[in-house]
Amino acid sequence: MLQGRSAGHQAVVGLSDARSRTVNLENIRIVLVNTSHPGNIGGVARAMKNMGLSRLVLVQPRAFPHEQAEWRAASALDVLERAVVTETLEEAIGDCQFVVGTSARERRIPWPLLDPRHCARRIAEVSPREQVAVLFGREDRGLTNDELQVCNLHLHIPTSADYSSLNLAMAVQIICYELRMLLAEGNVPDREDDHWDTPFTTRDNMERFYVHLEQTLTDIEFLDPAAPRQLMARLRRLYSRVRLDEMELNILRGILTETQKWVEKARNR
Amino acid sequence: MLQGRSAGHQAVVGLSDARSRTVNLENIRIVLVNTSHPGNIGGVARAMKNMGLSRLVLVQPRAFPHEQAEWRAASALDVLERAVVTETLEEAIGDCQFVVGTSARERRIPWPLLDPRHCARRIAEVSPREQVAVLFGREDRGLTNDELQVCNLHLHIPTSADYSSLNLAMAVQIICYELRMLLAEGNVPDREDDHWDTPFTTRDNMERFYVHLEQTLTDIEFLDPAAPRQLMARLRRLYSRVRLDEMELNILRGILTETQKWVEKARNR
Repeated sequence: MLQGRSAGHQAVVGLSDARSRTVNLENIRIVLVNTSHPGNIGGVARAMKNMGLSRLVLVQPRAFPHEQAEWRAASALDVLERAVVTETLEEAIGDCQFVVGTSARERRIPWPLLDPRHCARRIAEVSPREQVAVLFGREDRGLTNDELQVCNLHLHIPTSADYSSLNLAMAVQIICYELRMLLAEGNVPDREDDHWDTPFTTRDNMERFYVHLEQTLTDIEFLDPAAPRQLMARLRRLYSRVRLDEMELNILRGILTETQKWVEKARNR
Repeated sequence: MLQGRSAGHQAVVGLSDARSRTVNLENIRIVLVNTSHPGNIGGVARAMKNMGLSRLVLVQPRAFPHEQAEWRAASALDVLERAVVTETLEEAIGDCQFVVGTSARERRIPWPLLDPRHCARRIAEVSPREQVAVLFGREDRGLTNDELQVCNLHLHIPTSADYSSLNLAMAVQIICYELRMLLAEGNVPDREDDHWDTPFTTRDNMERFYVHLEQTLTDIEFLDPAAPRQLMARLRRLYSRVRLDEMELNILRGILTETQKWVEKARNR
């Protein structure tokens, strides 16, 4: 049951989703080589499912299936259940056209090397029509030189020089996140207020507001037209930075109007 | 000891590193609100240190200090030891000029919202001269509406609709990774062969190689000059794709020269 079916994971499944033009996550498998801690396998399964990946291959895991894997997987048990376990790396990636290996160290013979962002773009380019594997090595020693030399491309996650040893599931999370970001491109706002519920107001309305504001501040004798100092300039700078939407502007103008009524009432007593 | 010193974490420390112009990680604190599982606190500490962040603030953690936190922190125990524990969110962020809150849900009142990449850029912009806090809520419910409303900006990590609940430490890892990527910009190759150890060869040398190759293939009677078909075109396409460096080219030319010697030897017998 937990061994999965080899035939299943090799099927090329097209996403019906319109965004699949950028990256086909169904064609991308995460391959863990000789993982020691079953908890990490569970953490990887969750990281994958959170980002929409589902194909996990385990090459000679030390302990799998295991309750720690299931606990860390949380609601990604289906990824664990579909996981394919193999004896050799060759079995895990034999049908792949593009193989990426994660590498922490500089190699004696330089290999094509990218950071996760550029690597995700390369994977995305080939993913609509090819099988892709991303290999992650042992917790303590990573991939061997022999394993790295079957790869088309090496992937290096930038880290602090003080502590460069990433947890395995964290490394998988970062790659899966970069793939997800490609899928999300165009669906997540570039500008922080792209998704606003009310139109932002026009320059003309802002000018009318400033006239109203200046009049009201004069009415309440906060502003002395004979010695205005920089008061209006400072208020203009404040509201320019914030970009008022139409509803907010209406609220502020309502406050000014009410204030003026109270001033008028007070003066007519 | 484990409570840290409040004064220490508020100091504005400039990085001597030349790259600090892009982002000052010393001015960025990660704030965890009401964390339930101490293991997650440890995972967060490790994720931070891996990416070069060191300032962790815990608002009413359920269990801290705790051995599970220490186990998951691995070699980031110093981050746990420097962690500041507070009773209220106000204490945790009172001295901050820029506060970002992570948000999974759409809010009734839209708030400025960015994905991790754009958010990291905004944080980087202010980090050289301002104190920045990035808030992460409870494992099960995130941040409350009141907590989100003290934020200048909301941050949303894109996820699969099938399983959108990220592990807390994974969410922190993604933000810290995005900040690290800004620091690494210009230091990580954009092109996969930027870091090659041998110069890539010139077009002229490639043309000489093709002449040599064609002659050798003719010598060994693999290529019939009267009926060359597309052989040379295919070989040109192959070597164009790979971009030979000078050492590789010398190796190939050496092979051709040796091959020709054997043909000559054979013919002169």
